[in-house]
Amino acid sequence: MNPDPESQASRSHLGSDAIPDGRAATVEEIVNLCKRRGFIFPSAEIYGGFRSTYDYGPLGTQLLRNVKDQWWRSMVQLRDDVVGLDAAILTSPKVWEASGHLESFTDPLVDCRQCHERWRADKLAGSCPRCGSKDLTEAREFNLMFSTHAGPVEDESTLAYLRPETAQGMFVNFAAVATTTRRSLPFGIAQVGKSFRNEITPQNFVFRTREFEQMEMEYFVPPADADKWFEYWCDERLKWYVSLGIPEGKLRLRHHGPDELSHYSTATADVEFAFPWGWDELEGVANRTDYDLKAHAKGSGERLEYFDQQSGERVVPYVIEPAAGATRAMMAFLIAAFDVDEVGGESRSVLRLHQRLAPYEVAVLPLSKKDSLAPLVSEVLSKLRPHFMCDRDVTQSIGRRYRRQDEIGTPLCVTVDFDSLEDSAVTIRDRDTTEQVRVPIDHLVAEVSARLGR
Amino acid sequence: MNPDPESQASRSHLGSDAIPDGRAATVEEIVNLCKRRGFIFPSAEIYGGFRSTYDYGPLGTQLLRNVKDQWWRSMVQLRDDVVGLDAAILTSPKVWEASGHLESFTDPLVDCRQCHERWRADKLAGSCPRCGSKDLTEAREFNLMFSTHAGPVEDESTLAYLRPETAQGMFVNFAAVATTTRRSLPFGIAQVGKSFRNEITPQNFVFRTREFEQMEMEYFVPPADADKWFEYWCDERLKWYVSLGIPEGKLRLRHHGPDELSHYSTATADVEFAFPWGWDELEGVANRTDYDLKAHAKGSGERLEYFDQQSGERVVPYVIEPAAGATRAMMAFLIAAFDVDEVGGESRSVLRLHQRLAPYEVAVLPLSKKDSLAPLVSEVLSKLRPHFMCDRDVTQSIGRRYRRQDEIGTPLCVTVDFDSLEDSAVTIRDRDTTEQVRVPIDHLVAEVSARLGR
Repeated sequence: MNPDPESQASRSHLGSDAIPDGRAATVEEIVNLCKRRGFIFPSAEIYGGFRSTYDYGPLGTQLLRNVKDQWWRSMVQLRDDVVGLDAAILTSPKVWEASGHLESFTDPLVDCRQCHERWRADKLAGSCPRCGSKDLTEAREFNLMFSTHAGPVEDESTLAYLRPETAQGMFVNFAAVATTTRRSLPFGIAQVGKSFRNEITPQNFVFRTREFEQMEMEYFVPPADADKWFEYWCDERLKWYVSLGIPEGKLRLRHHGPDELSHYSTATADVEFAFPWGWDELEGVANRTDYDLKAHAKGSGERLEYFDQQSGERVVPYVIEPAAGATRAMMAFLIAAFDVDEVGGESRSVLRLHQRLAPYEVAVLPLSKKDSLAPLVSEVLSKLRPHFMCDRDVTQSIGRRYRRQDEIGTPLCVTVDFDSLEDSAVTIRDRDTTEQVRVPIDHLVAEVSARLGR
Repeated sequence: MNPDPESQASRSHLGSDAIPDGRAATVEEIVNLCKRRGFIFPSAEIYGGFRSTYDYGPLGTQLLRNVKDQWWRSMVQLRDDVVGLDAAILTSPKVWEASGHLESFTDPLVDCRQCHERWRADKLAGSCPRCGSKDLTEAREFNLMFSTHAGPVEDESTLAYLRPETAQGMFVNFAAVATTTRRSLPFGIAQVGKSFRNEITPQNFVFRTREFEQMEMEYFVPPADADKWFEYWCDERLKWYVSLGIPEGKLRLRHHGPDELSHYSTATADVEFAFPWGWDELEGVANRTDYDLKAHAKGSGERLEYFDQQSGERVVPYVIEPAAGATRAMMAFLIAAFDVDEVGGESRSVLRLHQRLAPYEVAVLPLSKKDSLAPLVSEVLSKLRPHFMCDRDVTQSIGRRYRRQDEIGTPLCVTVDFDSLEDSAVTIRDRDTTEQVRVPIDHLVAEVSARLGR
């Protein structure tokens, strides 16, 4: 992601651009759902939480896994030209010195001389928001990287940073990956993992947090082809969100103006989503030029070039980077899926998550808690579980259980009833249409696969 | 994992216990393979590496993903009684105060007064290994948690630790998870994620590193049933490694003696693997009793109990914890899979990885680089890629390419030749038997699925 923190930190509200019409979830509704149903909890909540970090509960863990897995599937598994990487979080200061993060990955901060609170200078209206004092210090630059020490002594030799982006891992490993995988340009290196930024103003639930998860890909191209690939990746990344159920009207591509571009980028566009607070960034697609590879070649003294066997020339590739936030993508999928409709004359909360994202793909519901159904329910589950994430829900009325599964986005419910003992068939109920069909248990896996688009 | 670092840190060599006979990879062979083929690189190697951290290259990333996914599949997806969690790495000091880590997660260190190097006291033979001086300080306890600051000022209020184990995330979220998922005892909470320990002596490649990845599950049971579940989980976890291809003879269960048990545990057993340096720990299975829940109940003032609706009683569950290291499991799978045999009178390096672990499941190889085969190769890949991780390899002789795929453990090669243009069939070649069969392209996905045991 962009080493200029402004791009992540300062455009939380993009002014008055209208967001699309239609039912839109509020942040409060999403936070409530997440807490009530176990998607996301404030971290260590029994101790009062901790500095805007979050713990993902059973449903959130599964949803976040699915978001990351779908990204990996689309960026690595289905492609011929992209391979994966999983670099360390603890990194050498040399990496951040060469990349420019040590010098310029900063926010301007001021101190209030009255109450000693510290604030972002560019967010202040001239007085301390806490005590109202106008007695503020000059702004000083504050580096957003978390630092620690790796080793038994706390000195320069053991200083380490938690990576503020995964991207640099791809640049420092460029030559090793290109050599061991014998790749020709263009090719990409993809990574999913945690990054850490000591944001002064975390906000909007999991949209901006100090600890967050990124899905970044660096696509190395011949310099002459960079513009073409930039367009290609803007298009591809927009399509990915649409393919997983975000309506096109809730997405837009916003090209950065010349004054907004990072110093190393000749073109950047943000994929934006209509969040409840306005259009905001889901991911950035940037033409990073040869800035990073040249910076690390200089910093390390190693050659970070591509040797074209056909032309016999060495070239420093340009890089096109689609850099997405997994946690904010998850939040966008939740917001877009949140719906209330009417079923049987009653209001119904339903999470219309794409079937590849839903935490549970199938819920198996015995019509009654009676012991006579239990063996068949277990048999049905043992057939489904090797293929699908399944929930078993036995308590309360079948109607209540359908609603519970609707609210967490389970696409299919499979009901086992007393007839099932006779006809070896079960009822499949669809989340979106609420339609029910009877299916022989022998065909269940195939039928569920087909309905889930497998 | 065990908050007593000794259990992870001090038993790297278990004495003279014989390890099984047969071809066994050396650490050097594994390190060489990992570097040459892009499984694992020293982190930021262009800068000379960094303090025993590692970056996983394309093949290592995929293998590690598969190890973690198979754990998740076995522990969460296939089970009725375990749900997932994904807690934050940055954690409140209150968590570590209550858990006992702040006070006792330490190693004893001594300084050499001559050369100022710092050493583990329990590893020294009375003189400095670097300069030979016997002028050493008294041992002092050194906490193994990495600390940092989350927020704009570096003081007590912003102090944070990088979690040294994922387990505490399950304990502090116990009540939230139990409530939102409406679980009865016994039930478990599983988590996969990074942990950080400031080890003084990282060693044996990725076996012991400061940054590592855990796969931990806390299984909450009625206290009276704890012994039974402890036995159950020892058995289950051994079986998991066997099910993924580690020979039974290279695994053993070692029960801790009374003097070796942590203060909170009434029973602990290590699943050990025959590493090249001797038997060593893959994972620990521990009866942690009610120690952790009681400690956090006391620390937070919250009730961390289970209310049994049938008996009307409140109980603090006991916890059985199978705690595995993902990175060391990956290393064990690599070592166990490493083999050299003879094919066609020539020596062959082959990685006999289980098909669920292999980085690539299928390699698609055109017999010739001629353009006439390219469209059909793309067609075959587009059929296979939605279902399997595929590699396309076009350079050098077909024999060389088979060897290359054998060396990285790809179970199946699919060869497209000039006959394929006529008969719409391809050849599937098996890694282990090297047998080849002709299969119609229309049946290819089904045939590959069957051979991969899907």
